[in-house]
Amino acid sequence: MNGLGVGVVQMAMGPSAPHNIETARRLVIRAASMGARIILLPELYKTPYFCTVEDVAHFDLAEPLEGESFAAFSPVAREQGVWIVVPIFERRAAGIYHNSVILIGPDGTRQGLYRKTHIPDDPGFHEKHYFTPGDLGYPVFDVGGIKVAVLICWDQWYPEAARLVALKGAQVIFYPTAIGWTPSEKEGEGAMQHDAWRTVQRGHAVANGLTVAVANRCGYEPTPGGEGIEFWGGSFIAGPMGEIVAEAGEEETVLVTTVDPAASERIRRIWPFFRDRRIDLFGPLTQRFIDDEEPRP
Amino acid sequence: MNGLGVGVVQMAMGPSAPHNIETARRLVIRAASMGARIILLPELYKTPYFCTVEDVAHFDLAEPLEGESFAAFSPVAREQGVWIVVPIFERRAAGIYHNSVILIGPDGTRQGLYRKTHIPDDPGFHEKHYFTPGDLGYPVFDVGGIKVAVLICWDQWYPEAARLVALKGAQVIFYPTAIGWTPSEKEGEGAMQHDAWRTVQRGHAVANGLTVAVANRCGYEPTPGGEGIEFWGGSFIAGPMGEIVAEAGEEETVLVTTVDPAASERIRRIWPFFRDRRIDLFGPLTQRFIDDEEPRP
Repeated sequence: MNGLGVGVVQMAMGPSAPHNIETARRLVIRAASMGARIILLPELYKTPYFCTVEDVAHFDLAEPLEGESFAAFSPVAREQGVWIVVPIFERRAAGIYHNSVILIGPDGTRQGLYRKTHIPDDPGFHEKHYFTPGDLGYPVFDVGGIKVAVLICWDQWYPEAARLVALKGAQVIFYPTAIGWTPSEKEGEGAMQHDAWRTVQRGHAVANGLTVAVANRCGYEPTPGGEGIEFWGGSFIAGPMGEIVAEAGEEETVLVTTVDPAASERIRRIWPFFRDRRIDLFGPLTQRFIDDEEPRP
Repeated sequence: MNGLGVGVVQMAMGPSAPHNIETARRLVIRAASMGARIILLPELYKTPYFCTVEDVAHFDLAEPLEGESFAAFSPVAREQGVWIVVPIFERRAAGIYHNSVILIGPDGTRQGLYRKTHIPDDPGFHEKHYFTPGDLGYPVFDVGGIKVAVLICWDQWYPEAARLVALKGAQVIFYPTAIGWTPSEKEGEGAMQHDAWRTVQRGHAVANGLTVAVANRCGYEPTPGGEGIEFWGGSFIAGPMGEIVAEAGEEETVLVTTVDPAASERIRRIWPFFRDRRIDLFGPLTQRFIDDEEPRP
């Protein structure tokens, strides 16, 4: 099997960007030494999760596509001969910022870009303030003969996004993410939330017959005037039957597995879901909601 | 909580239709006595799973919408004051047969009809021979103020179908099914297949913030010239975070739980996925596949 070594970095972020970059660099090199050929960092790896509040000063944290993160990881990619999926807070123009990833190739150049399409906004996660919804659709990238896609955090709850990249031939979906509990949530529905998150992504692997690789943050980050967030870690890689092939706990971790390029072909012969999709009936998926044709009394 | 009692019947089928009907009747009455107000039977509950071979004589097993099954369960529904989801092999016209469900209301009348839209066809599961793909789209039904939908077996692997009924307001999706292993499969990937099946449906519950209720067959059925199929049972009910609230083993079982009509509202306030769907990007979901715009060398 001439497979693709897939690496996932789980790390905790502190207030210092140079420190976070250095941690990420060290773990990327470790993943490469373990056989990874493409390595995923967690969402917004360079900073604490700053969206807990709305503060226009935080726009200063953004960087251009070929900014500090690119400068840091381009040489690593070249030296290690690997692909690196680097999440950035992208400054595109005055007043247009995105939650993005750049894909850096083994030659050190930028080979791909995705901008998060689904933007959450809930207490403690004020992302609609910071991030313009992505306008690049759902690209896939050719990585040494295997097609991969990147979807970011909130995107991971949407079967439509996973399906669209699968329809473009993706065999691996990477999900950089930043998800956790407030300490009080953890006590209550914490385990159930974690399992829901794990299950829906494993479900995408099953429904599409492909591999899913998820990199989350770990560690506690204080929030101004709040309880803080405990990022739950639990980064994982699931195969095309949704089976967990590697999974992290709550600590800094590097996961590496090999994706068999024939796996999707094999599973889709046994469970040929793509053959039977009722595309003639799927048009209403582009509706926000399908209201009653005949309102009931 | 003024909830909806949901019942799931898991049963083994023998060669005698009257015997299968009587078993189903007994278990429906048991579910009603346990508090169920709507009760689900497994796919094609009246016969052995006959699609293991292509045999035109098997079309004799089909019945009209208000045939033997309706005659058997209409009085049960009326006497017990319950809704019953009854899967039938529907004879619609000469040369048009469907894998359908009828929904019988507490007044004993037929209140709903769904025809399976996704038809599998794989070694031992020759359904495309027997079943014309459903042409009714994805209806939802009002059951005492709660909207429910029924999707059948192979449909359960399709996030699109689950999403479409959720977009029509369904709070519960019923999945009658007939899934199992050949004895030789069970030894190998059996556990992984079972878990993939369970996971993808739990994933639909999470992605849509609704309850999923699944009724499978159990027991061994011999197949002409083959190993036979061991239906794996494992019927379950999962809540809107994908959490398992009731689950059967491999034996005849009745599951009953109460669905809180406010549950979807509650979970969708915390995880408001429907607010953020990028419907402007979802048009290509109606494509069979999205081929390379620029063919690669």
